[in-house]
Amino acid sequence: MEYFPAPLEKLVEQFASLPGIGGKSAQRLAFHVLSLSDQEAKEFADAILEAKEKVTCCPVCQNLTDGGICSICASAKRDESVICVVADPRDVAAIERAREYMGRYHVLHGVISPMNHVGPDDLQITSLVERVAQGDVREVIMATNPDTEGEATAMYIARLLKPFEVRVTRLAYGIPVGGHLEFADDATLMRALEGRREL
Amino acid sequence: MEYFPAPLEKLVEQFASLPGIGGKSAQRLAFHVLSLSDQEAKEFADAILEAKEKVTCCPVCQNLTDGGICSICASAKRDESVICVVADPRDVAAIERAREYMGRYHVLHGVISPMNHVGPDDLQITSLVERVAQGDVREVIMATNPDTEGEATAMYIARLLKPFEVRVTRLAYGIPVGGHLEFADDATLMRALEGRREL
Repeated sequence: MEYFPAPLEKLVEQFASLPGIGGKSAQRLAFHVLSLSDQEAKEFADAILEAKEKVTCCPVCQNLTDGGICSICASAKRDESVICVVADPRDVAAIERAREYMGRYHVLHGVISPMNHVGPDDLQITSLVERVAQGDVREVIMATNPDTEGEATAMYIARLLKPFEVRVTRLAYGIPVGGHLEFADDATLMRALEGRREL
Repeated sequence: MEYFPAPLEKLVEQFASLPGIGGKSAQRLAFHVLSLSDQEAKEFADAILEAKEKVTCCPVCQNLTDGGICSICASAKRDESVICVVADPRDVAAIERAREYMGRYHVLHGVISPMNHVGPDDLQITSLVERVAQGDVREVIMATNPDTEGEATAMYIARLLKPFEVRVTRLAYGIPVGGHLEFADDATLMRALEGRREL
């Protein structure tokens, strides 16, 4: 049985369908929308429609853009001979925040995951191989997540890129900066020892 | 600096402005919206606009309704000689879920709170007094929350209703059903003892 007017129940349902939003939170959010001004509610609704309508994928690197080639691919300042391959547009944002990397990107939009029925053809792998095949690329950095699926995807792509004259690298493993040795897991510590460097 | 296309950043900001949604959650929700179909995104946006546009307050009890007098005030099955006064439309939903109360409601839309600059005139108190003044009401049940502000509001309204021939009651205090005595606070235990009943 419904205890709120139908349009309010509908809005509660919409919020409840979002990931990580439970019934109580959805109710709180819907009541918050009611408390907005007409103008604010319209802005919220427009933001949803506009994001959905205007945000597309860059035809070169498949990162999100609001029209045409993305700002990173369009920038003459970025080294086009290095491509950093990530699973998700959020990973691009994470790497950009570090302000260290000056190459280009390629967004796969997922990782190979047989459990979730995601195969190589569901990802932006062909477009990456095409970019590399054009010959201007010197290095491809595999920056998928350091978990089983991210590893498998990195290995798969590295094998695909073998025929081309290109260096394929992987992000370094090790203890996180500011972390504590005593809390590091065995696998990370092992990789940190393996990858030790001269001081 | 922004790492996402402007329309996406805007949507993240909109989500982040909702209560209880932090930056990371807002990002997750915005990406979820991008993953929706055009139709689903439109339904979400429409739900916001529709709730804002169609949901109004019942002219009698001030509960939320989607047009005209609410279903509880319009129902001939509900006893119109008893009015349950609550602070919020969500409280109506909570009491309705108990399926015990068969009277009408009155929603104050808040409680008296000098700290938050909410005075009696900011609440639906005049409309309650007018309903009682019409003379058909036998009992007014004060069902504001059992906290300082809820108590003060209940006392204030009870005094306002003194001149009328009406019983003003308050919800019973006591230990919650299914609760444990050892976890009950002193004030609740004291009230539970005061309000003890014959078996």
